[in-house]
Amino acid sequence: MRIGILGSGRMGGKLGTLFARVGHDVVFSYARSEQKLKRLARNAGKTARAGTPREAARDADAVLLAVHWSRVEDVLKQAGDLSGKIIATCSLPMNADDTELVVAHDISGAEALAKMARRAKVVAAFGTVPSEVLFSVFEAKRRATRPSLVYCGDDRDAKDAVAGLIRDVGFDPVDAGPLRIARHTEPFTLLIAQLAYEGDRGPELAYRFEWRAR
Amino acid sequence: MRIGILGSGRMGGKLGTLFARVGHDVVFSYARSEQKLKRLARNAGKTARAGTPREAARDADAVLLAVHWSRVEDVLKQAGDLSGKIIATCSLPMNADDTELVVAHDISGAEALAKMARRAKVVAAFGTVPSEVLFSVFEAKRRATRPSLVYCGDDRDAKDAVAGLIRDVGFDPVDAGPLRIARHTEPFTLLIAQLAYEGDRGPELAYRFEWRAR
Repeated sequence: MRIGILGSGRMGGKLGTLFARVGHDVVFSYARSEQKLKRLARNAGKTARAGTPREAARDADAVLLAVHWSRVEDVLKQAGDLSGKIIATCSLPMNADDTELVVAHDISGAEALAKMARRAKVVAAFGTVPSEVLFSVFEAKRRATRPSLVYCGDDRDAKDAVAGLIRDVGFDPVDAGPLRIARHTEPFTLLIAQLAYEGDRGPELAYRFEWRAR
Repeated sequence: MRIGILGSGRMGGKLGTLFARVGHDVVFSYARSEQKLKRLARNAGKTARAGTPREAARDADAVLLAVHWSRVEDVLKQAGDLSGKIIATCSLPMNADDTELVVAHDISGAEALAKMARRAKVVAAFGTVPSEVLFSVFEAKRRATRPSLVYCGDDRDAKDAVAGLIRDVGFDPVDAGPLRIARHTEPFTLLIAQLAYEGDRGPELAYRFEWRAR
């Protein structure tokens, strides 16, 4: 797939790198510096390059939205037309202090995004694990029991494509249903963040849903 | 421990049965019928009995609050003084239709409960798994990898006691921090409910948090 990374910070930088490692074409965009984008692209390998948000979006099948919530409008404006494209979003709708959700309860960040980018296909994914765990999950991906990663959205084909990306980076995709379920997955992410960053066991945390055999 | 069950429905009935099986003194109260309470007590063994909410609470070290949210005020009134006692709550603050949280975002059901029962020690626990999975987790409790169960609260001793009960029924207790974290665990429960009741893999669902070894 051709994947544009909109927001090449901790999450976007790592996921883009892993997407490139399994052979996807990746364009990194929207980081603090041009140097950072170039360094990311160089480290990610020959299918990766640095670009502007517009370049990242132009030929992409999917974009990964991985900016702070306060930057969503700006990066979407810079990216240009996303009609028909998949937006996999891990942008949690946090306030400037990162202390609480500014969109919650009877709406979610993912649904708010779908209203901003009406003709794109929004799938909420990748937001529910800390960036710190991504490389170690990827490196262990041949293991029998992979950690889960929930995703939700309203477009079946877009969801299937994102499920493939989730599998590519070493997780077991768990379909949580329609996009409105992001109302639950976004607070779940805050629970994960609490366990990862406020507990004493460190941020390399993943989770697994286990259905019992009957 | 002496444990009073306030609300002997699907969750309270099963948890009370398991508490009795490991040797705790259990009083079942507040079900649809007296017959149901007596049947539960008979099946749970010789350390269990049926009673009123007041009898369940009177000598208890801990009560399990497991009523529908619309019944919380009523059962607390019937239970009487809970000063100094532990309240382990799995009552999710749902509306009458069970379609959405009526208390959420900048407050949680567990915190609202702590305001109603000011001198009790509230610990949010047991709410995050479906009742359907409890017996199979209990039966598999000698396994090396147990499923997780998150709990949170503001009183250290009460939390330790509840962690012991979580272990007794076969789960690995995961301390999620202060009671306000119930703002995240309660929506997490809705994610679990979605996966358990709306997916195609059935309700016998548990979850496990996995920290990677460094």
